Amino acid sequence: MAGKSEEFASQYESGKSEFIAGWQKYISFRSVSADPAFREELLNCATWLRDQLGSFGMEAILLPTAAAPVVLAEKIINPSLPTVLFYGHYDVQPPDPLDKWESDPFTGVLKGERMYARGANDDKGQVWPVLCAVRTLISTGKLGCNLKVLIEGGEEIGSTALAEKLPAWRERLKADVLLVCDTEAYAVDVPAITLGLRGVIHMEAWLHGASSDLHSGLHGGLIRNPAEELCRLVAALHTADGKVAVPGFYDGVQPPSDQERAFIAEQAFDIEAYRTKMGVYPDGGESGFPPLERLAFRPALSVNGFHSGYGGPGSKTIIPGEAQVKITVRTVAGQDSEKLMRSVEEFLRARVPSSLSMRFEGGVGGAALRVSPTAAHVSAARALLEQVSGVAPKLVWNGASVPIVAKIVEETGAHPLLVGWGLPEDRIHGPNESFRLSHFRLAYMFAAAMLSSGKVR
Amino acid sequence: MAGKSEEFASQYESGKSEFIAGWQKYISFRSVSADPAFREELLNCATWLRDQLGSFGMEAILLPTAAAPVVLAEKIINPSLPTVLFYGHYDVQPPDPLDKWESDPFTGVLKGERMYARGANDDKGQVWPVLCAVRTLISTGKLGCNLKVLIEGGEEIGSTALAEKLPAWRERLKADVLLVCDTEAYAVDVPAITLGLRGVIHMEAWLHGASSDLHSGLHGGLIRNPAEELCRLVAALHTADGKVAVPGFYDGVQPPSDQERAFIAEQAFDIEAYRTKMGVYPDGGESGFPPLERLAFRPALSVNGFHSGYGGPGSKTIIPGEAQVKITVRTVAGQDSEKLMRSVEEFLRARVPSSLSMRFEGGVGGAALRVSPTAAHVSAARALLEQVSGVAPKLVWNGASVPIVAKIVEETGAHPLLVGWGLPEDRIHGPNESFRLSHFRLAYMFAAAMLSSGKVR
Repeated sequence: MAGKSEEFASQYESGKSEFIAGWQKYISFRSVSADPAFREELLNCATWLRDQLGSFGMEAILLPTAAAPVVLAEKIINPSLPTVLFYGHYDVQPPDPLDKWESDPFTGVLKGERMYARGANDDKGQVWPVLCAVRTLISTGKLGCNLKVLIEGGEEIGSTALAEKLPAWRERLKADVLLVCDTEAYAVDVPAITLGLRGVIHMEAWLHGASSDLHSGLHGGLIRNPAEELCRLVAALHTADGKVAVPGFYDGVQPPSDQERAFIAEQAFDIEAYRTKMGVYPDGGESGFPPLERLAFRPALSVNGFHSGYGGPGSKTIIPGEAQVKITVRTVAGQDSEKLMRSVEEFLRARVPSSLSMRFEGGVGGAALRVSPTAAHVSAARALLEQVSGVAPKLVWNGASVPIVAKIVEETGAHPLLVGWGLPEDRIHGPNESFRLSHFRLAYMFAAAMLSSGKVR
Repeated sequence: MAGKSEEFASQYESGKSEFIAGWQKYISFRSVSADPAFREELLNCATWLRDQLGSFGMEAILLPTAAAPVVLAEKIINPSLPTVLFYGHYDVQPPDPLDKWESDPFTGVLKGERMYARGANDDKGQVWPVLCAVRTLISTGKLGCNLKVLIEGGEEIGSTALAEKLPAWRERLKADVLLVCDTEAYAVDVPAITLGLRGVIHMEAWLHGASSDLHSGLHGGLIRNPAEELCRLVAALHTADGKVAVPGFYDGVQPPSDQERAFIAEQAFDIEAYRTKMGVYPDGGESGFPPLERLAFRPALSVNGFHSGYGGPGSKTIIPGEAQVKITVRTVAGQDSEKLMRSVEEFLRARVPSSLSMRFEGGVGGAALRVSPTAAHVSAARALLEQVSGVAPKLVWNGASVPIVAKIVEETGAHPLLVGWGLPEDRIHGPNESFRLSHFRLAYMFAAAMLSSGKVR
């Protein structure tokens, strides 16, 4: 087995410049799913990806959805062998605020040990090395299991279009293990298997007052101000000790098991290091819970954006006609997302003054996920990860959401295996997103080891 | 005297099309003072205005300031006659939100009884008919007093640049009466003399958290969210009964005198009519005070804008790195604006969590103004207004601010006379600003009557 790792390492070294060039090409597609202006770029990206997978020796097609198409590729080498379904996404978050980027977000720029670009990590930089490994394995005849590859273009907008299709594609996607590379490593060159993900609910509320912006001198003190009232509503969402004040918000939350607590206890959370990396102390959220428990075993509610009135240079003395807030809720396993969303809506509506009106929109992105630390496929992956990295992987629980994972698991019956290589300092979703080259390499090495061994569970 | 009014009326009719064309030309300058991108347009507007005043027979010059130049023109017919200083501004508010305009904001469009454009009213549409009257009086040799015209280009950003120059221009601007046309009429074709203006303080606060936007899944529940915390701060600014919660906010407030109350009592405030015009009930501000008192005799605090994080289409699951709020306070006569601004800043600072940081900027725009209902120049103007309109003018107190007026009064010793022709439905500062043609005409008629009579006080 050690010999095999050396073989993959040398294959990586000889292919490296080509792998990186392909990564940069992949990054260059402005595949922003949140903004309809980028529809064409999403299609171009999917087409390119399909052609790449085809050239690697897979049977690759585009499948239409209500949004961007899905790239599906298959390589069945022996029906009696286990099948791995590899899931990823080719869409990315919007790049704004553009003025905070140090280089063009859609040009992959190598600086030191990192690639900088929107999608350098999430998820192009995590998917691409796996596909490079698939290419190597097929070309050398070393693929040890059947493989299905499913790369979608709508993860950053909640995977709704793929989710709609899943029941119809159930048989087509059937697999033993679902490999997802869209999470974080434990630390630099220390791998992690993510056993928990939070679910996500997207919400947006608008508060409407006067039929247009009004002069703050001629009307200030006379009317209710939608910006101020929406501030009041948002402020009411949390109590002074950081709890979400919405009734029923914590319904269904299960505390960590003793086994889970033991793994969590192994993991240090360095408050000063966090502050150095993020520029802020992690002193938010529910008081009384340690950081890792707040992040992964407790639901949270976050304002993603608040916009009302004038924000340009100088002053504009108006009372805004409306105010808008975008909110996401992160749920944990055991919660009823639909009910929770209605509770938040009702909480807000009950606080809207009678002279103003509220519009509310929301949707459940996906459910949370919780995998047993002792599952067979987890044990198999732990061994392979230690082999390729030389370090025992950590078992972790993550606060983020990959909404579609729980749905794919439900439809295909596959056992989810989340092995990601991101790091907090990669600043995914923010300006100057980046990805470590050493993690790009480890992603390649692990995929080669796993997909060649056939021992996936 | 009635004969004189008829003369002005017929002069207006014969000049009308030229007056309106000049108004449209004046509107066509994008003289937005809040945005440095429009600097050139401000200069073009000032130059045009100077040339117009010169062509009317006044000695007209541009005087430089730290911002846009001031247009100053003079016509001294007899040093023993009283002198009127006419003040106005040629700058306008930014036109956004642009998508709410039904026609181009910088093209004066006549529809029915109204001219639509940014500045159609504030203050181009109020200044221009006065200048047309001056033109008529000079060309017919009917000017009955000395006249100074001072039109500035920075009123909408607080008149700071003009205010700086006032002490140096003290002698140059000396006058008996300061005529200002930048306020409202009482109703359609019913004139008003404004005896009170509120002062204004501009403030802006930024709350800073992480050094960039962070992923709301990977950090939600861990850190304090600047958008949420700023909502909490803004929500704390008002109590449940609509009072401003900042200690000392109502210091120095003087209730209306019996005489003032008598005039206020004459004025109906029609809640349903307000709702129909503005699209919202006037149920904001301090409970326990009638609308007109809340608006003109009580200070108020309004959020003009709040911006943080993502506001575009779809969702972006971030915790914003910062949040910004713009606030104006309207003060009343007797208040210490500097002290009040510091109180608001301290109130906010005291509530900033230790892990976040706040930047605060603020400046006093101008003091409030309160003129006695029985002053001689008020009586003279009441008589002339009744004569040109056929209706007894109302004495009113206004919630808006013309920051520079109190300062000019202080420097020049002139008695302020505020006769404006705006109406609430003109929606100044908002989209689709407009001005009634019949008020444009009354402004012309009153200016002609006042400046020809010489009986200004």
